[in-house]
Formats: sequence, structure tokens, C-alpha cells
Amino acid sequence: MPRRVPDLSVYLVTDRTLSRGRELVDVVLAAVRGGVTVVQLREKDAPARETLELGRVLLQRLRPLGVPLIVNDRVDLALALGADGVHVGQGDLPPEVARRLMGPDALVGLSITGPGDLPTLDPSVVDYAGVGPLFPTTSKADATPALGLEDFARLRRQLSVPVVAIGGITPANAAAVIAAGADGVSVVSAICSADDCEVAASTLARAVRQGRPGSRRPTP
Amino acid sequence: MPRRVPDLSVYLVTDRTLSRGRELVDVVLAAVRGGVTVVQLREKDAPARETLELGRVLLQRLRPLGVPLIVNDRVDLALALGADGVHVGQGDLPPEVARRLMGPDALVGLSITGPGDLPTLDPSVVDYAGVGPLFPTTSKADATPALGLEDFARLRRQLSVPVVAIGGITPANAAAVIAAGADGVSVVSAICSADDCEVAASTLARAVRQGRPGSRRPTP
Repeated sequence: MPRRVPDLSVYLVTDRTLSRGRELVDVVLAAVRGGVTVVQLREKDAPARETLELGRVLLQRLRPLGVPLIVNDRVDLALALGADGVHVGQGDLPPEVARRLMGPDALVGLSITGPGDLPTLDPSVVDYAGVGPLFPTTSKADATPALGLEDFARLRRQLSVPVVAIGGITPANAAAVIAAGADGVSVVSAICSADDCEVAASTLARAVRQGRPGSRRPTP
Repeated sequence: MPRRVPDLSVYLVTDRTLSRGRELVDVVLAAVRGGVTVVQLREKDAPARETLELGRVLLQRLRPLGVPLIVNDRVDLALALGADGVHVGQGDLPPEVARRLMGPDALVGLSITGPGDLPTLDPSVVDYAGVGPLFPTTSKADATPALGLEDFARLRRQLSVPVVAIGGITPANAAAVIAAGADGVSVVSAICSADDCEVAASTLARAVRQGRPGSRRPTP
């Protein structure tokens, strides 16, 4: 039986350094009230023990809400937390290793930055792809060049797993990204750095719905 | 049955950035020929996948020699490699978590930087302590203040597990460190940055033997 991939519509990646001094838990919970459907814990510069403690609090709050928590990069943190999954990049532990350590029931996501990464995604191992950056972004210092909508759409058609698009996504372009084939959009600063994280998430969620086939889009 | 703690006499911590452009595998193998008894893989700035590949090569070369490979910080890397153990610092995953993930047979080491860290070491969980820095060091940017020999000796008496001393250790002070109660000495640059890593290791190994009780020390 295949793993059930959760609703990827609005996929929040955390970053305390972009959260304007607010408590990350508050930012995440506001975002979830606004419509975030998945949370990825990515705190690149924090010591593992601190991220573990943060992850414990997040998991305790998110699990009753049915919102999965996915840990970036560190399979050991994901295992220690009993998180719902792990997301690995091309430089992290290979997805096959993540799958072996996490077991068959966990979610394993893989970052795809361009056509060259396609051979690294085995759909029997990886549950979803994080494809990007779509647009230029400031949230990730080491991001590769932006794909743009056309290249993204082409890349997406070559992937047999659900896809979240990431990189420079805002309410203004989210509908177009969904229309180009994304199953969801992943954001960091569009929510973490917003004046009101709940409003930012709900605005984004609305844009995602508007991008779905068959939806009536108020503006082209 | 308690885990068998290996001979900690000369405990090498790797650092490619301090290895003067040489292949780390060559540095490690030369060091082992010289008398290194344990190798810890610590490549803080390398992507996990790169460290995984390096670890695989090291493990393949070290296992036939009976020299254990311990992974710094990342339990997932240690698990993926099937390494002999993991070494965690005070900011890394807690040793209890490392033990749970690694299982009962793996080695788990814990860094102790001063008396305040003593309560974090449960001898039923942790196999050995890495105590330091003994002396000022340049190999670890975030090192806490140096203990010095007297404070080290006091701290060591409060630990019921084997102790490797770390931080600023050289052939010139290693015998005194052993005489102060260390079971072994841990070095980075004293071997990795040496002109001849094998000679550096054997000089250090000799100094360690000279520090053992009952040895005849050529110089005070």
C-alpha cells in the first residue's frame, strides 16, 4: 500500500532568523490557522538540541491539528522526534538512506533543482519533490538559479510524485505556479516574515485554490 | 555486559580544512600507522552526503585494522555508515537520544567542558567523555575557555567513565595530560596539520605511554 501523501497545498518551511524576533511556535500556529497544511522544520544554524526541543513543542501542537511535521536534512532529529517525515536536499543524506533509517511509513521528500537532479528521484523511495527555486529568493543563501514557470512546468511533467514548488513564491504568483503543475507551494519568508502570519497563510491558500484546474480565477 | 570501550590512547578527530590540502583518507591512514587508536569523523562544514562518502571509505579501510570510527554529532550519519559510535557535544542531540537511536552496542561519547556539564553524563548511557579544552586551541572556533591541568585532573576524578582529553594537546604536554588522569589524548591539528602525520602520531603515542603510571619518563 502506498504511503498517503498529505495535502501539500501550503507547505511552510520554518526559519527563526526570518521570523522578525517572534516565537517560531507562534508563527507556525498562526500560519496553520491561516491554512498551512504541512510544516517543515528547517533551522540550519541552530544546535541540534535546540531544534529537537523546538520540534517537540511543534509536534505536540501540530499533531492534534493533523498537520504533519517534516524535518529538514537531519534524519536523526526526525527519528528522535518521531516526526512525520524528513526532507533531504541533493547534498544531504541520499533519499534511499533516509528511507532505510526512517522506515516505510515516514514521508521522504527530495529537493529537485533542475533536470539534472531527476535521476536522483526514485518514486518507490521518495514521496514528494520540492522543486525550485521557481523565482529568485532571498530565504536560501545557497539557492541555485531560478527555474521560472516554463522550465518548472516542463520539469514537473517529468516527475511522477506530488510536487511542491519553492523559491520566491508569493500570493501574487502562487496561482500561476499551481496552474503550471505544482500540487502545493512552499514558502519561508512569505509567511515567516509577514506582518500577520495567519493572514499571509490564508492569502496564499486562497491563491493556491484559485490556481487549481476548474477554479474561477478573479483575475488572469 | 558492559560495552567494551576501545583503546582511547591516541584519538584522532578529523578536519579536512586543517589537513593542508591532503586527502583525508591518506592523513588518517598515516596517523593510524603511527599509532592512532580511534578516529572520529568530524567535518562540520561538509554536506552530509560528502561526509557519508568519506565515512564509507574510512570505515572500509579502518575496520580491517581494528580501529573504530566514531561519527561526530550526526547520529543519522553514524547509523547510515554502520559506524562504531557517535560523539555528541552539549549542543548536539542528547546522549540518551543518541543511545536510543544507536542501540546498546554502539559507542556513545559525550563532550564535557567543565564541572557544569557533569550532570549530563549518565555512565549507563555514555561510554567515554571527551574532556576539554585542556589548553587554548585554534582547531575549534567555538571552544570554551581552557581548563588547564589542575582543573582537568579535578574534573577527571569526578567522572566514572574513560576520559580522552582534548584541546591544544601536543607531544610536549601529552604525558602530563595522561599523568593527570586522561586515558587518552584527542587531537586535530597536532596530527592533521603535521608535516608527517605518521611521525606526529607516533610521537604523540610515545608521549602517551610516557605519561602512564610506572613508565620511566625521560624528561620531567
